[in-house]
Amino acid sequence: MLKMILTPRFGEIDGMKHVNNNVIGEWFELAREELYRYFIPDLDLSLEKWTLILVRNETDFLGQIRYGENVEIRTYILKIGNSSFTVGNEVWQENEIKAKGKSIIIHYDYINEKSMKIPGEIREKLNQHFLKEEDIGKSN
Amino acid sequence: MLKMILTPRFGEIDGMKHVNNNVIGEWFELAREELYRYFIPDLDLSLEKWTLILVRNETDFLGQIRYGENVEIRTYILKIGNSSFTVGNEVWQENEIKAKGKSIIIHYDYINEKSMKIPGEIREKLNQHFLKEEDIGKSN
Amino acid sequence: MLKMILTPRFGEIDGMKHVNNNVIGEWFELAREELYRYFIPDLDLSLEKWTLILVRNETDFLGQIRYGENVEIRTYILKIGNSSFTVGNEVWQENEIKAKGKSIIIHYDYINEKSMKIPGEIREKLNQHFLKEEDIGKSN
Amino acid sequence: MLKMILTPRFGEIDGMKHVNNNVIGEWFELAREELYRYFIPDLDLSLEKWTLILVRNETDFLGQIRYGENVEIRTYILKIGNSSFTVGNEVWQENEIKAKGKSIIIHYDYINEKSMKIPGEIREKLNQHFLKEEDIGKSN
Repeated sequence: MLKMILTPRFGEIDGMKHVNNNVIGEWFELAREELYRYFIPDLDLSLEKWTLILVRNETDFLGQIRYGENVEIRTYILKIGNSSFTVGNEVWQENEIKAKGKSIIIHYDYINEKSMKIPGEIREKLNQHFLKEEDIGKSN
Repeated sequence: MLKMILTPRFGEIDGMKHVNNNVIGEWFELAREELYRYFIPDLDLSLEKWTLILVRNETDFLGQIRYGENVEIRTYILKIGNSSFTVGNEVWQENEIKAKGKSIIIHYDYINEKSMKIPGEIREKLNQHFLKEEDIGKSN
Repeated sequence: MLKMILTPRFGEIDGMKHVNNNVIGEWFELAREELYRYFIPDLDLSLEKWTLILVRNETDFLGQIRYGENVEIRTYILKIGNSSFTVGNEVWQENEIKAKGKSIIIHYDYINEKSMKIPGEIREKLNQHFLKEEDIGKSN
Repeated sequence: MLKMILTPRFGEIDGMKHVNNNVIGEWFELAREELYRYFIPDLDLSLEKWTLILVRNETDFLGQIRYGENVEIRTYILKIGNSSFTVGNEVWQENEIKAKGKSIIIHYDYINEKSMKIPGEIREKLNQHFLKEEDIGKSN
């Protein structure tokens, strides 16, 4: 499981004085960057080099996240298919889970507009962060 | 079904030259505002007056959305429960559906931190925008 | 002077219950799009076609902008140089000016990384929106 | 001088494959948080406790900031007035300054809607980060 610490930004708080739901997706995307580097080590954004496309997001907002206190973002792998993989993410603040999400990402060839098989060595790296569905949201 | 036209902003485009996935959630939130006004006519953000809380988002990214061309956001009701309701949203560009999502929203008392029954007159207004699950994503 | 109407998004409001200052820049960028089309009619983002680069922003935040009420964004030209031009922007809400800004933009060749002269026909179009510095912020 | 390291987010990159100009303001706001804590130690966002309001931003965009490489945000004080102070900020990437800005912030009473004198002990803390105008943008 990957973990990173983040400081909520003043502008990420909304009118109800808690982090706006759309911000959570930006945090999760940032936390997935370490996985993206398995596919694109230098994160080069050219159509020739970038090979990932997000096709689905699911997020449950479990509690309100407040300003002035850091959060921890957790990242793990829930499923590895032939050409796609599912990443799980969580936000924790003050020892409570505040949001959890799943993202389905396809290994994708932008030039020829088709999916690509995930190579074995990347599959192995992803596998190191595997978490069983029943362990989602459990503190550790 | 509610429809609104939106112009993608330059900064909403990401490095792959298409609208970033997290922006879609902001668009959907904006498009739901008309429904929010059924509950809070003046959209007053005080804890006493604001009575809605988002608890779940699901989004499928079906196609890339480009800069320089307006999009249409469609909004409809998929389910009305006792104290919660499910809103469906779609993004269309150049006669193609590009993303669709579902959001579960609870009628919520922020002071006492508990859900509230949706009043009959609001239920009726929501009902006017009801769409059957099997009609999702069909152009009309 | 160009004018456009915009609805503040729920997530654009910050913890003080007013539009966050960084959002104003996104609104101004959107409002300048009509000017950008003089240079790049289809707003094609390729390095070969896109020819504008922002080099300076100044913004004065004059009043708090609230949720639930549309704003009007005004856009005009303050200066046209050899290869750069200065755009002025204002936000109005409920007949009051809430923010005003200036942006310096350079006509720029991204491939050769150098500024380019603004062609006469574009200069003429920009000139149609010219406003004298002393008229900034005056309602009309 | 305060320094913090930040990782540009995928969605912060725009269609020209560099960090969008409006994002810089969000980074600077985050970097100023340590100064905000001098005034509001727990960053409580209530009208009674929050006492800062931003009234002006100036930003020069000096170079393109790319994805995949961390940035350093620098923060210092340029001026301390009776009830306002001016913060300077810089973004550095790969040993080059990429943007610099100034923000004027007022010590403000939101309830009575008027500015307040900056207390002596806060003034002293701010003073520790003082930088002379002629030293702006110099690497150290």
